[in-house]
Amino acid sequence: MIVNFAERAHNHNWRLDPIIRSLLDTDFYKLLMLQFIWKHFRDVEVTFTLANRTKNFSLAERIGAEELRMQLDHVRGLRFHKSELIWLAGNTFYGKRGIFEPEFLEWLENDFLLPDYTLTIDNDDLCLSFRGLWTQTTLWEIYALSILSELKTRTALREMSEFSLDILYARAKAKLWEKIERLRGVPGLKLADFGTRRRHSFLWQEYVVKAMRDTLGMSFAGTSNTFLAYKHDLEAIGTNAHELPMAMAALAENDAELKTAQYRVLDLWRQTYQGELLVMLPDTFGTTQFLENAPDWVTDWTGQRVDSKDPFVAGDEYIAWLKSRGRNPEKKLVIASDGLDVETILGLHAYFSGEIQRGLQPGDFQNASDFLDPNKWLPKKRIRFSAGWGTLLTNDFRGCDPNDRVGLDPISLVCKLTEANGRSAVKLSDNYSKSMGEPEEVARYRRVFGTAGQINVPAVV
Amino acid sequence: MIVNFAERAHNHNWRLDPIIRSLLDTDFYKLLMLQFIWKHFRDVEVTFTLANRTKNFSLAERIGAEELRMQLDHVRGLRFHKSELIWLAGNTFYGKRGIFEPEFLEWLENDFLLPDYTLTIDNDDLCLSFRGLWTQTTLWEIYALSILSELKTRTALREMSEFSLDILYARAKAKLWEKIERLRGVPGLKLADFGTRRRHSFLWQEYVVKAMRDTLGMSFAGTSNTFLAYKHDLEAIGTNAHELPMAMAALAENDAELKTAQYRVLDLWRQTYQGELLVMLPDTFGTTQFLENAPDWVTDWTGQRVDSKDPFVAGDEYIAWLKSRGRNPEKKLVIASDGLDVETILGLHAYFSGEIQRGLQPGDFQNASDFLDPNKWLPKKRIRFSAGWGTLLTNDFRGCDPNDRVGLDPISLVCKLTEANGRSAVKLSDNYSKSMGEPEEVARYRRVFGTAGQINVPAVV
Repeated sequence: MIVNFAERAHNHNWRLDPIIRSLLDTDFYKLLMLQFIWKHFRDVEVTFTLANRTKNFSLAERIGAEELRMQLDHVRGLRFHKSELIWLAGNTFYGKRGIFEPEFLEWLENDFLLPDYTLTIDNDDLCLSFRGLWTQTTLWEIYALSILSELKTRTALREMSEFSLDILYARAKAKLWEKIERLRGVPGLKLADFGTRRRHSFLWQEYVVKAMRDTLGMSFAGTSNTFLAYKHDLEAIGTNAHELPMAMAALAENDAELKTAQYRVLDLWRQTYQGELLVMLPDTFGTTQFLENAPDWVTDWTGQRVDSKDPFVAGDEYIAWLKSRGRNPEKKLVIASDGLDVETILGLHAYFSGEIQRGLQPGDFQNASDFLDPNKWLPKKRIRFSAGWGTLLTNDFRGCDPNDRVGLDPISLVCKLTEANGRSAVKLSDNYSKSMGEPEEVARYRRVFGTAGQINVPAVV
Repeated sequence: MIVNFAERAHNHNWRLDPIIRSLLDTDFYKLLMLQFIWKHFRDVEVTFTLANRTKNFSLAERIGAEELRMQLDHVRGLRFHKSELIWLAGNTFYGKRGIFEPEFLEWLENDFLLPDYTLTIDNDDLCLSFRGLWTQTTLWEIYALSILSELKTRTALREMSEFSLDILYARAKAKLWEKIERLRGVPGLKLADFGTRRRHSFLWQEYVVKAMRDTLGMSFAGTSNTFLAYKHDLEAIGTNAHELPMAMAALAENDAELKTAQYRVLDLWRQTYQGELLVMLPDTFGTTQFLENAPDWVTDWTGQRVDSKDPFVAGDEYIAWLKSRGRNPEKKLVIASDGLDVETILGLHAYFSGEIQRGLQPGDFQNASDFLDPNKWLPKKRIRFSAGWGTLLTNDFRGCDPNDRVGLDPISLVCKLTEANGRSAVKLSDNYSKSMGEPEEVARYRRVFGTAGQINVPAVV
């Protein structure tokens, strides 16, 4: 083989291996929300703050501040390519062309600019935050999380020999394949990649997504990653997230406005997208109160994404609510997206799209043929179900390191809206202990919304 | 990345991906035996014939005759490189320099030439044989077997998608690693690669050998593959094989000469190699009769390779024989080389280099620490043991094909000496049903050597 002198010299010249290769490398819902914010909240200023939810894990120990700065600076230097904007304009999303308005795309091309970041090291932990116009700041969330996740990966890989690296990836691929094998051919199954923010690396996410595309057929609905959807002709998946109701709630002038914020945001959303993309996320201030007090038009929405509640429980609650409002659940959709792996995906699919026989566990569904076994499964659809498979799809390297180290195990980082126009943003969620925000504000929100249906609520005598 | 135009065009131009890249790509014992034959049997003419021992497997179905011809022709066109011959002259083998004589190396350089082959297709099976001077013909054995093995691999790979291929190799690497993990750190373990002839492919054998070198430390003794030893600074392992006693037996003029042929070959060997490389292969006409009737100087040899007998039984027989001749077995060596995999290697090592507690099976030794567990193992060396790990080291792809096909499972091909100077060559071995040769000749050999210690001997009333 003749030496490629240019490539060899270039490999020595390499200054930065960028983690974010395109501004499209973000969750699709961020772009939908960005247009929404651009239309309705153009002057709101926000802060996004990084939080590390994994105990006994010091980010500063595993990620060099200088390396992080270089990656963040690289993203600030990126611009949307013309071809990417033309794709956003011309592609169909959820079957509809023209989801993004020409004026918005012009703004993306000419006026969009990520604000600077604030990075300090405090008590051995990295403190990273982003402050600026909501329209400019919101996209930082996913870029920052993917960068931190991949930098942590690179630190772990740096300690490994070439042979160990080869075995690592061989094992990770074999593990991925075992997962795909169990999902392959399961009748009616629908799932999508939701794993951008906590991925092992961009290239690994791309590998995983292509593997699913090549093997899962119609069961693979697409990816939340806009760049991968663009690059590989896949469906871009996602609608909206907690930051919308959180910001609208923070902007409310009184408790009455606070209480209706969660519905006003949906109302504004359906106006913005002309009755498309109607998947809601009802758990920002507790799902139970959300459903109980919802105006009737909320029952027209296509479905809901379940995030902080046990998805078996949340799906049942949604079905019961729909029936109580005289709607047919069979046409509606439940999307689960929190900490999923194969067993839960198969179990939820069987539970909602069919019926598990009494006494069986999700783990009893080992492969496709079990779903055709009438002793295990009675096909009887209760509601449509789709899985948003995240971290354990794109970053499951547990047990793959031949030296048995845990540096590649996934950790739980979030980068959340903490302020809007100077007021603390709050999330209660369906898990009392997972609430976020300043304590006094959290207490006020609990007074307004109650804690019905939440778990881990302290007992009050 | 800038396109490498030359490489891309060259990839389209490729006519042949050669399986044998060097004449050194053969088992080291073939070269030792070649020098022996060149010294003592320069005028003997022989035939080597391919035999397929796997039932229900048609070679002709899985291997194209034209492709086979191209590979065989390619080997006929190869010559020893100067650098390879200089290495053979200057390297130490088993601690000794100058094992190969200058005249022999000159002959290799100037006069060695593989004779033509005969290839026909008969009843859907490939018939392949080689005929010519023994000195020219003997090396065909390993080249032919590795070519057939890799062509079979290529046929199976050709049916697979890029993703399936990637998963295949990921699984094979993960599987290899599980094996290495169980062997890593086992005190006193010694093993070598003996997997050239039935390897998945040359590149896979090279990968496996480098993996063992990088991870098994002193436990990895080296490889039987001379080219890999040369390329990677490893010890070349091996001494001699059945073809020597088979040919000398075939050349014997009467039954008395036939009976002593197995010892005369050893006598000639120790003269040729000045008392080095004294590992014998006693099973050509049955191990039990070989040991019983052996002259006393045979007890001076360093050890024996066990091929067709259960190695636990054969080792015990050798130990008992050494003791009966007043020799200390602890200094002697048993090499097992037939169908080994991790469990048998660990079991044999514990059995000969230590002592398995009663009631335990080889499978109870799952990892290195078990060998340090005094409840499982009492260190008490009975004889030195070394494993010659073949097919299940270099070609264990069972269960790795994501489409569950078996085209990559190893098969049992041999290419054996069938004639010497026009007389039928015979092997009895320690397994009655595995004898080879013309029936009348086999019967005569059985009369001369008996069948003591052989298994599968038909009951005689």
